[in-house]
Amino acid sequence: MRVYLAGPEVFLPDADEIGARKLEICRRHGLTGVYPGDTTLELSGLAPRAAGRRIYGCNRDLMKGCDAGIANMTPFRGPSMDVGTAFELGYLAALGRPVLGYSNSARSFPERTLAYFGLDPAPAGGDPPARDPLGLAIENFGMADNLMLAGAILDAGFEVVTRQIDDPERLYRDLTGFETCVEALAVRGAARPKNTR
Amino acid sequence: MRVYLAGPEVFLPDADEIGARKLEICRRHGLTGVYPGDTTLELSGLAPRAAGRRIYGCNRDLMKGCDAGIANMTPFRGPSMDVGTAFELGYLAALGRPVLGYSNSARSFPERTLAYFGLDPAPAGGDPPARDPLGLAIENFGMADNLMLAGAILDAGFEVVTRQIDDPERLYRDLTGFETCVEALAVRGAARPKNTR
Repeated sequence: MRVYLAGPEVFLPDADEIGARKLEICRRHGLTGVYPGDTTLELSGLAPRAAGRRIYGCNRDLMKGCDAGIANMTPFRGPSMDVGTAFELGYLAALGRPVLGYSNSARSFPERTLAYFGLDPAPAGGDPPARDPLGLAIENFGMADNLMLAGAILDAGFEVVTRQIDDPERLYRDLTGFETCVEALAVRGAARPKNTR
Repeated sequence: MRVYLAGPEVFLPDADEIGARKLEICRRHGLTGVYPGDTTLELSGLAPRAAGRRIYGCNRDLMKGCDAGIANMTPFRGPSMDVGTAFELGYLAALGRPVLGYSNSARSFPERTLAYFGLDPAPAGGDPPARDPLGLAIENFGMADNLMLAGAILDAGFEVVTRQIDDPERLYRDLTGFETCVEALAVRGAARPKNTR
């Protein structure tokens, strides 16, 4: 089973080492990890937009060739996950592939959203605000992030795996939650006869 | 042509009025807009997670029944667009539907990212930093947002439409960029024979 490994760790200077660790964890559980091409493609001589488009085309084709996906849903520059990874979750879900996800934040989505605006999650003598300062509702469905993302993972029969990692050095590098996803997917794969998708 | 209308305006108190305006713009250009079910579904009596899952299932099925998608890519609680909308762009792209997008921010993606961290986009005597304080690369492909999102729109033969809206009241409500997308899609549709997808 080929598994697309989506996540914002491709933006780290040690992206390739993290990718190698993810592939090794997959291998140990009998799966074949497929890491995005962001850091390995030959882009020299390309203008910025052409380079971006080449990475897009590469990752799009890698997803098509995979049987499942595991997303790093750790909050990225705000209360929610990386948008590129969210796009990939949607892409894989529409292809009918089972999708799984892990986040290295265990704080609730409303709490993270309130913190982003500097609002108190437990104000004295009242409920936390249901809307942000711009008037936008703060989603409160007991899910790890926006309902479309968590919904796709629940739809596939999995739960978003969350852990609280406070050390910023480990925020995008800790793979404990990732390995829990790999295990869940390997168990699912073993329970199904091959070549029936 | 049925067009899925993705965007974080569903979180506004006047989401239904904005939806009605979007449908009317589509109608004027000969298209049928399809607004997400977030605000119109009957959810009473459902536990939060069940309610979230019902919305997910509704929007997933609405997307399957559409021929194209237009996404509101305006930055949402950070430098990037709403992750639910990003998921939907990926979902529609994987279904082979043409996707378009507009953003009510015309600032560059690196500039928005630097501003998020309080960093100077034009420091005296040097280039802006290429990485954020956590060491993550700041994407600089001349695209309106993460390359997977802009890449899908360019792949469909469209450009992300950007305008700078400074009034926070109009940030998610101004539909000028949306109408530009509708026009582009209507022209494309008219240039193609029907029922050939």
